[in-house]
Amino acid sequence: MPLVPHARRRAERLNRWGAERGAPVTSAPVTDLLAATAALVGVPSESHHETPLADLVEQRLRAAGHLTVDRVGDNVVARTTAGRGLRLVVAGHLDTVPANGNATPRIEGDLLWGLGSADMKGGLAVMLELACTVAEPAVDVSWVFYAGEEVEAVHNGLRHLFEHRPDLVHGDAALLGEPTDGVLEVGCQGTMRLVVRMRGARAHAARPWMGRNALHRAGHLLVALDGYEGRRPVLDGCEYREALQAVFVEGGVAGNVVPDLATVTLNHRFAPDRSIDEARAHVEDVLAPHLDEGDEVEVVDVADAAPPGLRHPLLASLRERNGLDVRAKLGWTDVSRFAAAGIPAANFGPGDSAVAHTRDEHLDRASLERVHGALEDLLRTGA
Amino acid sequence: MPLVPHARRRAERLNRWGAERGAPVTSAPVTDLLAATAALVGVPSESHHETPLADLVEQRLRAAGHLTVDRVGDNVVARTTAGRGLRLVVAGHLDTVPANGNATPRIEGDLLWGLGSADMKGGLAVMLELACTVAEPAVDVSWVFYAGEEVEAVHNGLRHLFEHRPDLVHGDAALLGEPTDGVLEVGCQGTMRLVVRMRGARAHAARPWMGRNALHRAGHLLVALDGYEGRRPVLDGCEYREALQAVFVEGGVAGNVVPDLATVTLNHRFAPDRSIDEARAHVEDVLAPHLDEGDEVEVVDVADAAPPGLRHPLLASLRERNGLDVRAKLGWTDVSRFAAAGIPAANFGPGDSAVAHTRDEHLDRASLERVHGALEDLLRTGA
Repeated sequence: MPLVPHARRRAERLNRWGAERGAPVTSAPVTDLLAATAALVGVPSESHHETPLADLVEQRLRAAGHLTVDRVGDNVVARTTAGRGLRLVVAGHLDTVPANGNATPRIEGDLLWGLGSADMKGGLAVMLELACTVAEPAVDVSWVFYAGEEVEAVHNGLRHLFEHRPDLVHGDAALLGEPTDGVLEVGCQGTMRLVVRMRGARAHAARPWMGRNALHRAGHLLVALDGYEGRRPVLDGCEYREALQAVFVEGGVAGNVVPDLATVTLNHRFAPDRSIDEARAHVEDVLAPHLDEGDEVEVVDVADAAPPGLRHPLLASLRERNGLDVRAKLGWTDVSRFAAAGIPAANFGPGDSAVAHTRDEHLDRASLERVHGALEDLLRTGA
Repeated sequence: MPLVPHARRRAERLNRWGAERGAPVTSAPVTDLLAATAALVGVPSESHHETPLADLVEQRLRAAGHLTVDRVGDNVVARTTAGRGLRLVVAGHLDTVPANGNATPRIEGDLLWGLGSADMKGGLAVMLELACTVAEPAVDVSWVFYAGEEVEAVHNGLRHLFEHRPDLVHGDAALLGEPTDGVLEVGCQGTMRLVVRMRGARAHAARPWMGRNALHRAGHLLVALDGYEGRRPVLDGCEYREALQAVFVEGGVAGNVVPDLATVTLNHRFAPDRSIDEARAHVEDVLAPHLDEGDEVEVVDVADAAPPGLRHPLLASLRERNGLDVRAKLGWTDVSRFAAAGIPAANFGPGDSAVAHTRDEHLDRASLERVHGALEDLLRTGA
């Protein structure tokens, strides 16, 4: 697609913006990336229905000629094999959450509206563009387009590749194109969901002293959570911030019965300086004063944290050459799958995560082109 | 049905038991009341399906000859019209809760097992027996057999009669045959259900400080309820005891979202010295410290309390001549419908309310015959 005039002007402006901050002047993108993103938004790819988009991506990558392309289910991996000393993995998910009246892309000036524009078809457009246009990168690159990120982990394509085709996803460092609006979001906090079942004894609501109200018991736990102050450890200069929240409470038998069971679901986010076992022990310490015989605590979901990884030369170079802002990733993302395999990884993509999964999801051109410019520079110059 | 030997022996024993306490010697029941109750248990009458039992009751009452019988839907009322100075209303509901593997009656010695044996086919058996055998009572009697007590008030047959045929249910005093195990349970507490909606603001569970956890807010209310001490006013020598309980708590959006709404359902029981408005004002005082802008409190169900009514000569006579124990009724019952019409009323029936609505519902012969004896004495002697 030819570069439209306003996109070129904007690219030039961005290059000036970067140059003023000491960033290298990169060439303007040869493609209108906002229009390219709109085209990807126009191919629906809700989780479990990524095949048409995977087909399109595979076709584009194969046409580029300089890439070795593998397809595993609806996951597509394209690699350069130039025998460079380092390999960078750049990964992004193909799927979106379900549409919410926003399935049709719409460009207004320098804004693209539509499902997946920010999370993360903007990132996919940058990846596709660079994969096809940078034929001789300074580092080898594995471009990983994967399915099933927005649903339960069992469907996650990156997880599947790590299990069954680790050769396709291993490298020296990794970037995930999740929306960070061009900030380098490093590491990620771990996440743990626990279900706490607090017991009581049923009684008629007119004679509650014959029983024990499990919901009233849960109140004491909820008040403790309300006053919970999470740790804020600083790792590699990045401040993490832990959290412990009740995300569900359920209980009740009938309108005239003292309930004998309260079920409280907790969500805990823990910084990368704690293991899963340490995080669990911490939550149990918080719970202990509120638990009694017969109560149960069950970990129903858990995922490791990932350390910042900023010391790796590829990530350090990306940061320094582009003057990128860095912040700790507080949520959990697939970077921790790379971290678990010993591969330093960070989130770096266009778009604002705050609009992801909302009806008003959108993406602005500047964010898209800033990320494109920084990544192109990394590929051309290496560590 | 002829009186079986062991029932006669038991009746004689009961009469001696009563005589030793100064109660009048009554004649042994002419019917085996436990077997008669078993026969009623054998006619299924879950709420909304009372017609076969109403048919049977109507037929028996019409056969007695000395009664004026009216049928309104599945409600049957039989009245003596001897022109006595006082009229006693004796009422009992025909329906049961749904069966729970206990639909078939089974007699073991002096115990009857089965659905509705205690709540309240034992009471119905006593009513039918006395309606048919005491042809010339010292007070006029209205025997009210009604449908739909175990379900929402809108189906309640007694309520229906008060609205559409008040002539059939009015009198000077009333007794309800609910299971009290032969104790005179007077008055009843009022009941009120309220739904409290507490608001928060959604946020990602990894950044909870961006929102406000509505469940954590609800915790403070639940703790206040846990420490709630209900008033214990003494009226006519009977101690009531108020209560305020959370009977349902609901809240939660998703496993990784700070919830923005907690819904707490409260059940309040209030003594007969308070009106509905006073009770509501009291609950609002308890809630006030925990509510914030945007929260809502909605009364979803309310029923008046009923004063003890023990000063009425008919109830006083029943109590004194039989040396009955008296206690305040803490739950809500249909006596409050009589109280609302200015008719002093009490619960007085065979069976243990603790086994009502359980799979192990049962009734013992002694309880049945004690209630029969006391009521027969009241009918034969009057106030």
